Amino acid sequence: MNIIESPSFSDIRAAAERLRVRATRTPLLHNRFLDADTDRQIFLKPETLQVSGSFKFRGAYNRIAQLTKSEREGGVIAWSSGNHAQGVAAAAKIESVRARIVMPEDAPKIKLENTKALGAEVITYNRYNEDREAISYALAARDGGVIVPSYDDPHIIAGQGTAGLEIFEDAAQMGQSLDALLICCGGGGLTAGCALAAEALSPATDIFCVEPEYYDDHARSLKSGYRESADTSQSSICDALLSPTPGALTFSINERLLSGGLVVTESEVKAAMRYAFRVLKLVVEPGGAVALAALLSGKLDAKYKKVAVMLSGGNVDPLAFAEILKEEA
Amino acid sequence: MNIIESPSFSDIRAAAERLRVRATRTPLLHNRFLDADTDRQIFLKPETLQVSGSFKFRGAYNRIAQLTKSEREGGVIAWSSGNHAQGVAAAAKIESVRARIVMPEDAPKIKLENTKALGAEVITYNRYNEDREAISYALAARDGGVIVPSYDDPHIIAGQGTAGLEIFEDAAQMGQSLDALLICCGGGGLTAGCALAAEALSPATDIFCVEPEYYDDHARSLKSGYRESADTSQSSICDALLSPTPGALTFSINERLLSGGLVVTESEVKAAMRYAFRVLKLVVEPGGAVALAALLSGKLDAKYKKVAVMLSGGNVDPLAFAEILKEEA
Repeated sequence: MNIIESPSFSDIRAAAERLRVRATRTPLLHNRFLDADTDRQIFLKPETLQVSGSFKFRGAYNRIAQLTKSEREGGVIAWSSGNHAQGVAAAAKIESVRARIVMPEDAPKIKLENTKALGAEVITYNRYNEDREAISYALAARDGGVIVPSYDDPHIIAGQGTAGLEIFEDAAQMGQSLDALLICCGGGGLTAGCALAAEALSPATDIFCVEPEYYDDHARSLKSGYRESADTSQSSICDALLSPTPGALTFSINERLLSGGLVVTESEVKAAMRYAFRVLKLVVEPGGAVALAALLSGKLDAKYKKVAVMLSGGNVDPLAFAEILKEEA
Repeated sequence: MNIIESPSFSDIRAAAERLRVRATRTPLLHNRFLDADTDRQIFLKPETLQVSGSFKFRGAYNRIAQLTKSEREGGVIAWSSGNHAQGVAAAAKIESVRARIVMPEDAPKIKLENTKALGAEVITYNRYNEDREAISYALAARDGGVIVPSYDDPHIIAGQGTAGLEIFEDAAQMGQSLDALLICCGGGGLTAGCALAAEALSPATDIFCVEPEYYDDHARSLKSGYRESADTSQSSICDALLSPTPGALTFSINERLLSGGLVVTESEVKAAMRYAFRVLKLVVEPGGAVALAALLSGKLDAKYKKVAVMLSGGNVDPLAFAEILKEEA
């Protein structure tokens, strides 16, 4: 497979085979209260329960499992605010490969700690005046090592697509055909992988990416047809979704396959996190809750009645979560 | 089936068939961090994700689905601190049967609200100077209605046993045979049902019930051979597990099939709730966390290497949970 080519559906199938005994096959959940509250039939994909606490393990393992013997010697290098970091660390640990991860020094504590607990070497940097890609390439130049990108890579996209593959397989087994799928979107790798799975297995399903306000670069790019940039001067609690612009490869896929992009506010994200806690009994991090937030805040056209919603990660600091729970009172 | 006889394994199979399209088949989860932290292979059964937020829906639906046409006219009556209440309310709603539930006025707010949201009529009483059974029987005498007991009933036990059936089916499908199963225990219905499932499907699995301190009536009864009483003058955060003594029917089953009872302290329960939040990304209520607490606090003999752990419910007030999260800081 050429590095700049889109993965095919058979690449997603091959990734699923690689992941079969390594990843958790997360269930497709339904909840009576959620259906009543939204007047739709909702199917939740809790990647919060995935190895490493987010879907990122899928792509990382799919890439690392395919390293050649000589590539393994230098180990892997990645940069990440935290979920890709944990995914790479968990995958590298399973494959007994050295992992070095460049992470912002202000990443959520739980993400820094878990990445280290999984055996990776963490190199922190200052998000405001240092360049994580330059740091990573310098590490690779000095000691060797293969860069594992977080989204703009066919192996990563194919790996993330296995989450979509499972959604459509499980829906079919339940005798359900989905009208829409809402996907939390940063760089667009999960979205692209799931869109490719939908194209093969459920072409009638409309796919929407969901982003937090200010980081709505996909939504605007899908409208303009060009890769637009986020307003990175703005802060957001959705630390997992702060990529500045859609990936070149991911956008070429998403532009072709998506029906549109939805955007949610910070207060809608927090309300969705509280809802997930109170009603669904699931711990969802801010970036993992944007798709649910779009649904609960009425951003999706009422014509969609059978909707799958990705809950993409659950790595959130308990004290930060406790504060969000208390805001409702 | 005679009302005082133990259910058989075929009653559990029949309950599973009744529940097939009504209940959630909750997954059997594993978690890499949990395995590393306990040096065992752990299989989690998250009944937190069940309809109504706890396993109680299983037994309640199994009973209510078997009401005769004339019994349906008077509806059902139950008493409960909250999880059986929600299970009965959800089941009655599906079967279009009137539900009246007698609940303590100091039950967790989320349990009172959800029971009402599910369409049940809630009658509150004072736990310290009123008798909930007397209130319930007076309601039945006045307006008719079938009492749905919370544990000491063969239909209820058979329904709860479907959770155990699923555990052993899923473990077998994974090619695993379990050494032990830890079950959160109040009146003993879930424990008895799961023990009967184990007897049929996995007789080599040792079954342990787990209780909070002061409410260790099963643990002591299993030792003495008599139905001992809890010290009900003591308070406990495990509001779901405060039954004063083992049921007559449940104890006759549990005495025969259990390997013993484990007991955990309140601080061990809170630590398990924080662990479930931080590592497993699951919201577990105090009473639903006792089995995990026993595991994490080292109450289970190290010889058990493949252990299933029931997480029996997730109905906890968000603000109470936030306080427990903050206690760690």
